[in-house]
Amino acid sequence: MNEKVAIQGIKGSFHHQVAREYFRDNVDILECLSFDILVDSLLDKAVGSAVMAIENSIAGSIIPNYALIDSNQLHIIGEHYVNIHHNLMALPGQEIKDIKEVYSHPMALLQCKRFFKQFPHIKLVEDADTAETARRIRENKLEGIGAIASKTAAELFGMEILADDIQTIKDNSTRFVIIQTQNSVLPEGEINKASVKFMTDHKRGSLATVLNVMSDCRLNMTKIQSLPVIETPWKYSFFVDVTFERYDDFKKAKSLLQIMTEEFKILGEYKNAKL
Amino acid sequence: MNEKVAIQGIKGSFHHQVAREYFRDNVDILECLSFDILVDSLLDKAVGSAVMAIENSIAGSIIPNYALIDSNQLHIIGEHYVNIHHNLMALPGQEIKDIKEVYSHPMALLQCKRFFKQFPHIKLVEDADTAETARRIRENKLEGIGAIASKTAAELFGMEILADDIQTIKDNSTRFVIIQTQNSVLPEGEINKASVKFMTDHKRGSLATVLNVMSDCRLNMTKIQSLPVIETPWKYSFFVDVTFERYDDFKKAKSLLQIMTEEFKILGEYKNAKL
Repeated sequence: MNEKVAIQGIKGSFHHQVAREYFRDNVDILECLSFDILVDSLLDKAVGSAVMAIENSIAGSIIPNYALIDSNQLHIIGEHYVNIHHNLMALPGQEIKDIKEVYSHPMALLQCKRFFKQFPHIKLVEDADTAETARRIRENKLEGIGAIASKTAAELFGMEILADDIQTIKDNSTRFVIIQTQNSVLPEGEINKASVKFMTDHKRGSLATVLNVMSDCRLNMTKIQSLPVIETPWKYSFFVDVTFERYDDFKKAKSLLQIMTEEFKILGEYKNAKL
Repeated sequence: MNEKVAIQGIKGSFHHQVAREYFRDNVDILECLSFDILVDSLLDKAVGSAVMAIENSIAGSIIPNYALIDSNQLHIIGEHYVNIHHNLMALPGQEIKDIKEVYSHPMALLQCKRFFKQFPHIKLVEDADTAETARRIRENKLEGIGAIASKTAAELFGMEILADDIQTIKDNSTRFVIIQTQNSVLPEGEINKASVKFMTDHKRGSLATVLNVMSDCRLNMTKIQSLPVIETPWKYSFFVDVTFERYDDFKKAKSLLQIMTEEFKILGEYKNAKL
């Protein structure tokens, strides 16, 4: 039986690509038009897994998604990286000079901003998804409107690519996480990465102390993201990703951090997908 | 002569409130409909100062704004905190059941999401600004459309408040920075906060080492935000805010960090506005 997997956006989106690559095509896709709906589909058990973009090598962390994982007690069971290529597309026969407005996801618009500086007549409008905009333009035969989306989306919906690879930085990688309501069941030998969350007290140097312990336990920090604690303005919690060679090293760090930090929580233990 | 100050959004916005409170009303306001335009107005010398939201106690860092300050070599010369109260407003005479769509800034929509769960018939639409939406509804007499904005905006544009204080977390504070193209000229005795940026090498523990030095120099870290280095996927730079009692302590830390880190940069030295 195929794995039921929720994605943000529709078929043809980068989330769809991740679902197919991570689960090797054996998936039944549930399309979700927001990250909130994506999380609800997990909580309601409509799906067993969901794919969620978590950070981009240009734009940085997608901060609300950290909060969604944390506040809904979800678990990261894997990660996947995709090189993002953005393309400007429209109905077949249209040219760039015909395009008055371009709709896409805010992240895609941000990444292609420099390309559009040469076309000041084009208005950029934020939309819920990349591929979904392409589909809507085609379905409603919207002239004068462009979408920024993947080549797969152009093929799927019969759109014509007016300019390809339009993102400012050509090397544009996005990290996705695979989330579930349950912990991962990987054997310890296969786990070499973990995402943890903790708070520290206000004392000077307390974050440094925590990072020292991680370093002493031979953990390599690959990411740190601070997030405000919403009940206590200007107090922060820290989301940290670490990689390690031996699971026992991480185990030791866990027991120390549980004592040293406030509200220590493991968001996931999984396999490092970064080469 | 009044100080010329650029704000994101229009008069009646929270940025406007900050400009008036920080510069004590002696300001000529330049309204900018995006943070990009705001930065351009500084670079083009149309204004001497600009007000920019940088983080919120609920939603966290406004990451693209860190990149704007950094990549345009701007300087933070001050900061200001505002308690945010969001209100749902519409044309006078309208009731909540008449409202089909509510337009506002994505940050405002995010902060009021829970309130709108009780009104599933209302569609939330992202817009460039809070106050500007209120103005547009009034000007075009748009029935069935609501805005989320401040009480000042409701008064300024003659809108009726249908529900006040609708943000989920009642204690909702936003930190704004005042930016200029030149460094601050405060006397050292008045400086007790600084924003710095640096990169560390990939070596295990290197961020911890930097934070140890800060702690040894009696700096208190109030914020850390990691941001990807766009030319080198998955390498991070760190934006750190520190407070201190003696400027000499910060001076000592500066000279050490210049040696220990890569591309150490001071984004600003200013007066701590947090009580």
